[in-house]
Amino acid sequence: MSEQFKKAALDYHEFPRPGKISVELTTPAESARDLALAYSPGVAEPVREIAKDPDNAYRYTAKGNLVAVISNGSAILGLGNLGPLASKPVMEGKALLFKRFAGIDSVDIEVDAESPQAFIDTVARIAETFGGINLEDIKAPECFEIERTLIERCNIPVFHDDQHGTAIVTAAGMINALEIAGKKLDEVRIVCLGAGAAASACMKLLINMGAKVENIFMLDRKGVIHSGRDDLSPEKAVFATETDLRTLDDAIDGADVFVGLSGPDLFKPEQLAKMAATPIVFACSNPDPEIHPELAHATRSDVIMATGRSDFPNQVNNVLGFPFIFRGALDVRATEINEAMKEAAVKALAELAKQEVPQEVLTAYELDSLEFGPQYIIPKPTDNRLFGAVSMAVAQAAIDTGVARLPLPAHYPLTTVADLLK
Amino acid sequence: MSEQFKKAALDYHEFPRPGKISVELTTPAESARDLALAYSPGVAEPVREIAKDPDNAYRYTAKGNLVAVISNGSAILGLGNLGPLASKPVMEGKALLFKRFAGIDSVDIEVDAESPQAFIDTVARIAETFGGINLEDIKAPECFEIERTLIERCNIPVFHDDQHGTAIVTAAGMINALEIAGKKLDEVRIVCLGAGAAASACMKLLINMGAKVENIFMLDRKGVIHSGRDDLSPEKAVFATETDLRTLDDAIDGADVFVGLSGPDLFKPEQLAKMAATPIVFACSNPDPEIHPELAHATRSDVIMATGRSDFPNQVNNVLGFPFIFRGALDVRATEINEAMKEAAVKALAELAKQEVPQEVLTAYELDSLEFGPQYIIPKPTDNRLFGAVSMAVAQAAIDTGVARLPLPAHYPLTTVADLLK
Repeated sequence: MSEQFKKAALDYHEFPRPGKISVELTTPAESARDLALAYSPGVAEPVREIAKDPDNAYRYTAKGNLVAVISNGSAILGLGNLGPLASKPVMEGKALLFKRFAGIDSVDIEVDAESPQAFIDTVARIAETFGGINLEDIKAPECFEIERTLIERCNIPVFHDDQHGTAIVTAAGMINALEIAGKKLDEVRIVCLGAGAAASACMKLLINMGAKVENIFMLDRKGVIHSGRDDLSPEKAVFATETDLRTLDDAIDGADVFVGLSGPDLFKPEQLAKMAATPIVFACSNPDPEIHPELAHATRSDVIMATGRSDFPNQVNNVLGFPFIFRGALDVRATEINEAMKEAAVKALAELAKQEVPQEVLTAYELDSLEFGPQYIIPKPTDNRLFGAVSMAVAQAAIDTGVARLPLPAHYPLTTVADLLK
Repeated sequence: MSEQFKKAALDYHEFPRPGKISVELTTPAESARDLALAYSPGVAEPVREIAKDPDNAYRYTAKGNLVAVISNGSAILGLGNLGPLASKPVMEGKALLFKRFAGIDSVDIEVDAESPQAFIDTVARIAETFGGINLEDIKAPECFEIERTLIERCNIPVFHDDQHGTAIVTAAGMINALEIAGKKLDEVRIVCLGAGAAASACMKLLINMGAKVENIFMLDRKGVIHSGRDDLSPEKAVFATETDLRTLDDAIDGADVFVGLSGPDLFKPEQLAKMAATPIVFACSNPDPEIHPELAHATRSDVIMATGRSDFPNQVNNVLGFPFIFRGALDVRATEINEAMKEAAVKALAELAKQEVPQEVLTAYELDSLEFGPQYIIPKPTDNRLFGAVSMAVAQAAIDTGVARLPLPAHYPLTTVADLLK
C-alpha cells in the first residue's frame, strides 16, 4: 500500500465520525405516544408474545435480519494474532459489507477469550440475540472446534467465513476454469499450497463436489502432506495421500490445478512451467499473490489465473458469497448452512458468470465487454444480480434439505438491495 | 392497557419491519475504491494503529459512541423472569431511547446465563466491543454481584439502570419536593415500601446526599427491615434500624416521605392520612402505582405526588437520566460512572425544573404554563434542555473526580441531539 492510500484508509475510518456503522431507529420515536408504544408500557405486549412462543421474536424484534460478526482477533487478515480490539475495524467492515450487499443488519462482537471453550461459551450464551453468526479471523486449529461446537449448540446458522466463504467462491471459479480448460473435476490433479483453515475448507468442498482426495496434494510448511507423516492434525490427516512426492517441485510436475492459500511469491515461474497444458492457477494470498498475474502470463500463455486482487481479472473475493448466503438462509429461517446450501451457492455463482454481463458492471470496471472465458470465470463483486441468484439458490437448497423453517418468501426472487429496503 | 393499545403496541413492533432498530453505514460503500478502504486492504491500517495503541479504537471504530444494553431477562419490567429472548423488545426499546435522546449508538445483547458468574464472564469477554455497558432487567440479589464485579473487570462505564437510573431521577424529584414542602433531607423520616434493587439504590443515593439511615424505614414482604431480623441479605441489612415498628401502618405514622417501589394499590388512603403535614408520596410502581394520584389528592390536599406515569404530573422516568449520563461519560471517556457523577446528574435534573419551561414542552403537553411547584418537581422527558444540562454536569463531575480520560469536548455545552448528529 502506498503512504497516500494508507492515509486515505485511516481518514476513511476516522471521518465523518469514528467507525463505519451506526444504529438507527426504524420506528417513530418523537411523541409521548410513540415512546409509550416503543417502551413502557407498550413493550410488555411483544415481551408476552415472545414468552408464549419464541418464534415471535422474529415478528416483533430485529433478530431475523441481524447477523453478528464475531472474532477473537487471533488471525486478523494476514496480520496475525493482534487480539480482539484490534480486529474491530475488520469486523465493522464485514458488518458494512453485509448491509451494503444484502441489506442485513450486522453488528460486530469482539470476544476476549483465551481458550476455545471460553469463546464457545461466550458466543453460545449471546446467540439468541441474533438471526445468524458469522465467525471471522479465528486461528486454526481452534477455529474448527469452535465452529463445530457452536453449530451444535445454536439453532441459528453459524458460518466461519474464512473457511467456507473462501471455499465457495474458489470452487465456483474452479468449476468454470475447468470447463474452459476442458477438464473434469474428478480427474484433475490439484496442488494446494497452504494447509490452514481456508485451504482445508476449499479442498473439502471440491471433494464434496467430485474431486478425488487421492488426486489432491496439500502442502504445509514441511512439504507434502502424506500418509508417512506422524505430525498431522486431524484436519490435515484427511488429506494425507500415499505418495513419494515431498516438495512443491515434486507435486507440481504435471499438475492441472494450483491453489495458493499461503503467502506472497511462493509459487515460482519454473514451477508453473512444469504444470500440465492449460494450467489453472488460483493465487489467493492477499494482497500479494503466490505468483503475480503478469509473471504467470509471461511464463505460460495458456494459464487460467485468479487472484484475490480487484485490479486483475477473476477476483476470488468472499464478498461474492457471505452476504447472499446469509440472505437466503435468513429469509427461509434456516437452522444451519449445510453442504447442500454451500454447493448451491457455488453453482449459482458459476452459472452467473456465463450470463451476459449488465452494462452497469461494464461501466463500473471501465470495460467494453466481458465474456465468459479465461479472463472472466467469476462474477464481479458489484454485480447486482448476485443478490437474487445466490440468495435464491441457497434458500431453495435449505428448503430441499429440510433445514428451512419458512417457505420461499413471496418477494423472491430478490432484485436489488435497494428494492429490498423499500 | 386497552385491547386497542395492545394491538397498536404489537403493530408498532411488527411494522414497517420487525423490531425498532437497524444498522446503517456512516461511510460511502459504493465504488471499488470505497470497499478497498472499508475492507481489504485498507482496513489493515486502523488494525495496525489499534494494535499499537488500544485508544486508537476510539478514533477509528464506532466503540466510543456505542453502548450495549445487556440483560438475561430475569426481571423483565414487572413481568418477572421470562428469559433472555423475551427481554429483547425491552432492550431494543432502550437502545431506541439511547439514540433518540442522546445520539448514542446502542445494541441489545441478550445473555442466556443461569449463574451470575457465567453472566459476568460473558459480558466481561465482549466488553471491549463497546464504549459503555447498560445492564437491564436483572433480578436481585444477583444484580448486585453482577454489577460490582463487572465494574471491577471492565475499564468502561458499567451501569445498572434499574438501580441507579431510578435512584437518580427519584432523588432529583425528592430534593425539589422537599424544598417545596420546606423540609430538609437530613431531618425527614422516609418510608420505602419495597426492598429490591431499585429501592436499595434509591435509599443509598439519598443517604449519600444527606438523608440519615436511622430515619429510613424500608419494608420488604415481611415488613419493616429492623436489626432484630436474621433473614436479611447483605443489601437489606444496610437498612436495618433499631426500632419497634413492624408494619407499614406502624412506620407511616408521622412520616414525611413515602417511596413506593413495590406493587399496585399497596398504599392505602388511611395510611396516607397518618403522614406528617405536606407529605411527599412517590408511588413508582408501573403502570399501576401504589396509590392512584386522584385517590391521594382526594385524601390529602397537601400531598406532593409523583408516579411513573406519563399521564399525571411529576413522572419519575429513567429516560430523564441514562441517555444523558452515558452521553457525558462517553464524551470525556470516563472509566466509570461514580457517585459524584450520579449526584451531579441529580442536581442538574433538580435545577432544570426550576428554570422557565420552553414553549415546545408546553405545546407537547398541551399546557398553558408549567411552574416549579407541587405539580412540577421534575423536567418532562421530551425537554431538549436535559441533553445539555445533565451531560455537562456528569462530564464535569467525571473530570473533577479524576475518572475522565479526556477534557470537556470543544462542542460542549451540547444543545440538541439533532445538532450533535449534524
